[in-house]
Amino acid sequence: MTADADRRARALLTRVAEPGDRHVAALVRELGSEAAVDALRDPSSRRADTYAARLAAADPDADLARATAVGGRLLVPGDLEWPSQLDDLGERAPWALWVRGAADLRMACLRSVAVVGARAATHYGEHVASVLGSDLGAAGWTVVSGGAYGIDAHAHGGALAVGGMTVGVLACGVDVAYPPRHDALFARIAADGLLVSEVPPGAAPHRGRFLVRNRLIAALTRGTVVVEAALRSGSLSTAREAESLRRIVMGVPGPVTSAMSAGVHRELRHGSAQLVESCADVLELVGGIGTDLAPEVRAPDGPRDQLDLLARRVLDAVPARRPATVDSVARTAGVAPAEAHAALGLLEIEGLVESGAAGWRLRRATSP
Amino acid sequence: MTADADRRARALLTRVAEPGDRHVAALVRELGSEAAVDALRDPSSRRADTYAARLAAADPDADLARATAVGGRLLVPGDLEWPSQLDDLGERAPWALWVRGAADLRMACLRSVAVVGARAATHYGEHVASVLGSDLGAAGWTVVSGGAYGIDAHAHGGALAVGGMTVGVLACGVDVAYPPRHDALFARIAADGLLVSEVPPGAAPHRGRFLVRNRLIAALTRGTVVVEAALRSGSLSTAREAESLRRIVMGVPGPVTSAMSAGVHRELRHGSAQLVESCADVLELVGGIGTDLAPEVRAPDGPRDQLDLLARRVLDAVPARRPATVDSVARTAGVAPAEAHAALGLLEIEGLVESGAAGWRLRRATSP
Repeated sequence: MTADADRRARALLTRVAEPGDRHVAALVRELGSEAAVDALRDPSSRRADTYAARLAAADPDADLARATAVGGRLLVPGDLEWPSQLDDLGERAPWALWVRGAADLRMACLRSVAVVGARAATHYGEHVASVLGSDLGAAGWTVVSGGAYGIDAHAHGGALAVGGMTVGVLACGVDVAYPPRHDALFARIAADGLLVSEVPPGAAPHRGRFLVRNRLIAALTRGTVVVEAALRSGSLSTAREAESLRRIVMGVPGPVTSAMSAGVHRELRHGSAQLVESCADVLELVGGIGTDLAPEVRAPDGPRDQLDLLARRVLDAVPARRPATVDSVARTAGVAPAEAHAALGLLEIEGLVESGAAGWRLRRATSP
Repeated sequence: MTADADRRARALLTRVAEPGDRHVAALVRELGSEAAVDALRDPSSRRADTYAARLAAADPDADLARATAVGGRLLVPGDLEWPSQLDDLGERAPWALWVRGAADLRMACLRSVAVVGARAATHYGEHVASVLGSDLGAAGWTVVSGGAYGIDAHAHGGALAVGGMTVGVLACGVDVAYPPRHDALFARIAADGLLVSEVPPGAAPHRGRFLVRNRLIAALTRGTVVVEAALRSGSLSTAREAESLRRIVMGVPGPVTSAMSAGVHRELRHGSAQLVESCADVLELVGGIGTDLAPEVRAPDGPRDQLDLLARRVLDAVPARRPATVDSVARTAGVAPAEAHAALGLLEIEGLVESGAAGWRLRRATSP
């Protein structure tokens, strides 16, 4: 099959199946995109009814043209611009991403942090999100968020205000302004940053799409900062995703008298998030491993040589055979558990270590 | 020597030596209070000059009478009212305590929490301290603090407002109103609670006395809550003392934009304090072991039988030989590290476990 055929097939699948559709994801993994489409088209297939209507209406060429018309494109695995860290999602990885904006998504996300939080944020939360966004932007880090009202909007806005890079991961098409009052914000992000979505141009958002979208925000970034969240805030689902992907989960404390900080405080109390007050705190946690995710790491002398001191100490503390817990690795390396946790997550992305139920150990290939 | 003679000698020592004077403390331990006084009086002794002037002016009977006149008394080790948890201070334990108020100090401190913080507190901090004080008081817990402006005053006031018990540990005499504007507060504490001090009636506070005073606040209580503290706040020294005494250290988060929360956030970030939002959070941490510090524990059937379920689980998880870390004990017991830490501290006070550089293990005598 040709690359174009693969891209057309994947474009069609974003129109036919909901993001995260495990049946379609499995078909694509097992048969490839084109055969997967054929399988869905097969009237004798058990699930034919599920997709028939959408298959009849789907027009991938029109969708691709529609994307091009707004400065967009479709990214598929194998593209140089495809963010390899999405592989961490395994079976839940997207089969394609619609992207709008001039920047390179992979490059933009190499050093990125998700800043998320409540829509009904307080002035305090919006202030913190805005300052965090601009400080991260000024420090050369990309601010990834969901383009929602409140915390998301102020995080994006803070980055844009200082000419920083920001990525809006949407639950609707990259040409759709949802929420409507954010049309100007999305236009600025499309102009100076990137808009990303799993659903095709023109697609409307709905509840389910916001939730599956959150896994992308978590997977694209090195860590997620929750600025404000009520006890049942959806932004906590992004924190959950980040945790399960072994990204660094951070939370900004606030007044204990504020319901909008209650969800964050619970995460901090249970140790599922680390307390951060500022951009400096965030970078101390996510910036531990110098250029680990940057292309140079793929240089011939091997990733290990590219690691900074902290990463090497942690790597040297990971046993080759019996798996060790983060705490014991931290003890052996003589670093804080938080640092060890951060380093291990990134060392795993580098393929230097692997983790299982019992803990962490060196990847065979890279054992000394 | 008679009990009276011992009390007179210790009263004199509170006038002659500064609280925490290690030389005097050692003399009292080695020779007893009366011989210690004789040793200080010995003109040939190396340090005679240090104490000569104060010895000449000291009049313990006058001090004792002065205390009695304001409803006060002098407590010495061996008194039923003497708080046994002060033994945890070892060589730094006070040799006597001046107390003012009708309540029994030992009983008052059996279930007590220290609530401390910045003098220059914000309205937010004062509100939180006041609510925490009244909620603890209403729950039957004693609020211990230092009687200072800001957080201390609001913690005392909250407890008094609901008829709860509160103990003010002062760096000046129990009949001295310092700070001056707190004369009314101190009168209310003396009437409904207790004022405690290591220095005799009429003694003025000075910088050094505030710092040594903090070790008493930490030692008398099961845990210390820091409500607000700037990065260099003196209230953090109370947290340090509580930590070194294996009491539970807690911190109330606040806006990251507030300098008065920066000190607390640093403690929380470094894991030297646990995040609490409310009285319920505090009691979850310090209330773990039902009546462990209460007299019943000294009942014939032995302390182990008095422990609640959590304490027993933790106790059963402590190895007899090789010491184990709090984390591994927590894992074995299947409880949160915070709970294990709290239980271990109290189990140690009960003489059931002991700790060393390598961790925790059962006390020989009580090994199964």
